[in-house]
Amino acid sequence: MTKLLPPVVLLTCGDPAGIGPEVAALAWEATPAHARARLRLVADPAVIAESLATRRGMPALRITTVSAADPRPSTAAELLVVAPANQTAEPIVPGVATAAGGRQAAAAVTTAFTLVRSGTAQAVVTGPLHKAALHAAGHDVPGHTELLARACGLPDDAASMMLWLPSANGPGGLGVVHATLHQSLRSAVADLSTARIVAAGRRLAPLLTALLDRPPRIAVAALNPHGGEGGLFGDEELRLIRPAVERLAAAGLVVIGPLPADTLFLRASRGEFDGVVALYHDQGHIPVKLLGMHRAVNITLGLPLVRTSVAHGTGFDIVGTGAADPASMLAAIDAAERLVHAQRPLTAASGAAF
Amino acid sequence: MTKLLPPVVLLTCGDPAGIGPEVAALAWEATPAHARARLRLVADPAVIAESLATRRGMPALRITTVSAADPRPSTAAELLVVAPANQTAEPIVPGVATAAGGRQAAAAVTTAFTLVRSGTAQAVVTGPLHKAALHAAGHDVPGHTELLARACGLPDDAASMMLWLPSANGPGGLGVVHATLHQSLRSAVADLSTARIVAAGRRLAPLLTALLDRPPRIAVAALNPHGGEGGLFGDEELRLIRPAVERLAAAGLVVIGPLPADTLFLRASRGEFDGVVALYHDQGHIPVKLLGMHRAVNITLGLPLVRTSVAHGTGFDIVGTGAADPASMLAAIDAAERLVHAQRPLTAASGAAF
Repeated sequence: MTKLLPPVVLLTCGDPAGIGPEVAALAWEATPAHARARLRLVADPAVIAESLATRRGMPALRITTVSAADPRPSTAAELLVVAPANQTAEPIVPGVATAAGGRQAAAAVTTAFTLVRSGTAQAVVTGPLHKAALHAAGHDVPGHTELLARACGLPDDAASMMLWLPSANGPGGLGVVHATLHQSLRSAVADLSTARIVAAGRRLAPLLTALLDRPPRIAVAALNPHGGEGGLFGDEELRLIRPAVERLAAAGLVVIGPLPADTLFLRASRGEFDGVVALYHDQGHIPVKLLGMHRAVNITLGLPLVRTSVAHGTGFDIVGTGAADPASMLAAIDAAERLVHAQRPLTAASGAAF
Repeated sequence: MTKLLPPVVLLTCGDPAGIGPEVAALAWEATPAHARARLRLVADPAVIAESLATRRGMPALRITTVSAADPRPSTAAELLVVAPANQTAEPIVPGVATAAGGRQAAAAVTTAFTLVRSGTAQAVVTGPLHKAALHAAGHDVPGHTELLARACGLPDDAASMMLWLPSANGPGGLGVVHATLHQSLRSAVADLSTARIVAAGRRLAPLLTALLDRPPRIAVAALNPHGGEGGLFGDEELRLIRPAVERLAAAGLVVIGPLPADTLFLRASRGEFDGVVALYHDQGHIPVKLLGMHRAVNITLGLPLVRTSVAHGTGFDIVGTGAADPASMLAAIDAAERLVHAQRPLTAASGAAF
């Protein structure tokens, strides 16, 4: 006989010296996701207990260490902690970047990843990393995403991100992918191509469909002021972007563009679009930060697992002060849970007794 | 004997077939500027009377045609109209771009300009033009600013603009000037130079000082993602922008930068800066539109007169519907009045009797 168990969503704190343990604990208590998923926090239980006991504004959670295979549901009152396989019992210093923090962050995400790859868990939600701490721990990668890509046997650039800004109210939101990202603006303009824009649109659409449960309305940004004014201020709209929009439309997407970027994001902020293909980093990040970066989420594309992440940093300057805002972690848990359920309604576990 | 008269601020409607007459009438009734300035609307009195009588949501203003030299104060209840010198009694069609509309717009702004140059008035506030109507009327210029530059005997590019976003509450606001503007992004990156950035900062500072009555806090945007990350994503920050910031600081400005553009505008939106030097069109326009374009104002720099303008278009699609929002016109009147008073507290008129 087969029992249907809700999917397992694993949380990690990122660097435990940052605000990760705080936003994880606050989100654990506040999230409605316990009703549809079994949450676990992958972390050193001693570090978590210390964080909850010593940092300001922490919820009164009971901490229970469980094995990864423990089938019990999660609840708002009891923090279920799974210890990382390769846990290091090193002290961390809240608010300070150390190799110990970097090692613990890497251990947690590696364990979480292994559990998802083995089918024990269905999604990973990651807290904020500190790049220097990760480097000090011997992990020469820019961040979580590349760690995960390497663990999948994929090149560092296999994965990309969608920036997801959930609506302040209601189930909708705005997803942004970039045709170019971490490169100079000069090289971004030079590297822009129809193929890159089409690829970005193709990454964006299925993810939004899964989050929204309907075909998304996508807008592609223009590169030049006023969308180039018919070639007066640059020809990329005519030469590269319009053909990309036509190819995406021919592939069945609901898509318009190129739209002048200033107008586009104003319209998107009013709910006219679900997704935007931005052509360079700041074109997407300036508006998303203004529209509500505190609740934005990064969703990983291109890896064979569901992974979402907070879009903020470690907040070393506010660690322990009670100022940490769990909005992004809450949104990241919500997005992970929605994506897992879009893949399959319920997880069929074979004969687990609970 | 010399009487002290408040300065004269001239309003124009832009294209009278657009929402210009509506926002001018609504702002006339609502502005507190009558207490510190004498307002006049330069327009065909018949067209204004027709607009007030037939368009939805217009205030019940008494219309009085006055001569340009009439010394009377203005009040919220009585619209004082100065007929343009070269007025054409042509019918206009609300919501439609015609040569007649373009001619009337040009006649009004030319008259207003002449009155400022002769000392009869102290500032011009312009409504939205329609470029095609202006062209149809035989004025081969992109807009008001170039019309004014030519009338001053200056080249078209003598003038530039500051985009001014007044605070939703309080006397402050955010001023944005661009180091490059209406050109392709590719050429903007290529043309960016220390000299252009320094020039933009030098234009911005005195205007903000006049508006705020104190030294402004200015931020200079970075060009590349994360401000280039120390040269990793482009070297313009190190090579061009930092030297410009140093030169502006050496000239006595309160200035920081280069700051990553996404962070910069988030901080500016929280009131941390009074002014921003944006490096290209969309870098300034994306955030300003999101932060409140409906109340944004264009302020002309580089011409020997005080001139402000609404930052919105003619709104042909909403003409007569009652949907026109006078917030930008109100802010443009407020800015003009503040700039005039910053130049001299009161206008000394010689012997005018009233």
